[in-house]
Amino acid sequence: MPKLDLDAIPQTNATGYPAPFDTQVEGRHYRRLAPAASLAQLRASHVVLEPGAWSSQRHWHRDLDEMLVMISGEAVLVEDDGETLVLAGDVVAWAAGAKNGHHLQNRSDKPCVYVVASAGDYDADSGEYSDIDMVFDAEGYARKDGTRYPVTRLP
Amino acid sequence: MPKLDLDAIPQTNATGYPAPFDTQVEGRHYRRLAPAASLAQLRASHVVLEPGAWSSQRHWHRDLDEMLVMISGEAVLVEDDGETLVLAGDVVAWAAGAKNGHHLQNRSDKPCVYVVASAGDYDADSGEYSDIDMVFDAEGYARKDGTRYPVTRLP
Repeated sequence: MPKLDLDAIPQTNATGYPAPFDTQVEGRHYRRLAPAASLAQLRASHVVLEPGAWSSQRHWHRDLDEMLVMISGEAVLVEDDGETLVLAGDVVAWAAGAKNGHHLQNRSDKPCVYVVASAGDYDADSGEYSDIDMVFDAEGYARKDGTRYPVTRLP
Repeated sequence: MPKLDLDAIPQTNATGYPAPFDTQVEGRHYRRLAPAASLAQLRASHVVLEPGAWSSQRHWHRDLDEMLVMISGEAVLVEDDGETLVLAGDVVAWAAGAKNGHHLQNRSDKPCVYVVASAGDYDADSGEYSDIDMVFDAEGYARKDGTRYPVTRLP
């Protein structure tokens, strides 16, 4: 059934972020769509972001293109050069290698719902977090001096 | 600006389909998002499908994963095994190589709006149309006996 039965796909707010960077994503409830749809090249998550929650720590990817479609509600897109309100029907895209950290913050009083998709070289991908002492690669997370955080990055 | 200014992206209903297969997509008005966002690996279109219009001829891809997010309105997903109503907030995904032809038909009296994304090997990709005497590859369109149609497939 190509139309996804979203209710049948497990929803989680799990994160591999080391403390204290995990607290801002506690209200991020996501479903991984690619495994449910047997997609191997396009990955996507269906996300419900509770009021106050962030989509991630602000980051950018070296090897992945990302695109987000806001389905309902609203959130604030934060980037190096400022903030942009993202409303239902808006589309946001980030090209691989563009070193402009981005994330969404739900500052409204209602959940927002979006789908975020990505494509690229998942094994080679790495990137950096803009506001905290953290970088990532396929293996996990490290400080910007290279010291690994003792955590596992979730797929 | 990662939030796409959709109004600034050219919208077209152009198709490379040979007649008479082009008539059903005349009411498909789309914007190519990857060029606008400088994405090289993830491709996507923002589509307004007028009442009566189809998203494409019913088809499947050998080498591309596809995913569709319905933003507003509704359409009927048609596949080998039947029809499914797709409503705002629904997500539909098709894995590369699954030989189950699919398309959307807007049978409602209002436009519907969706974003469809894909990823995979665009150069190698090919596929077939389920209901008509046509196949496709990177070069264009042919009958199922291999005779080429004298048209150019649009990127």
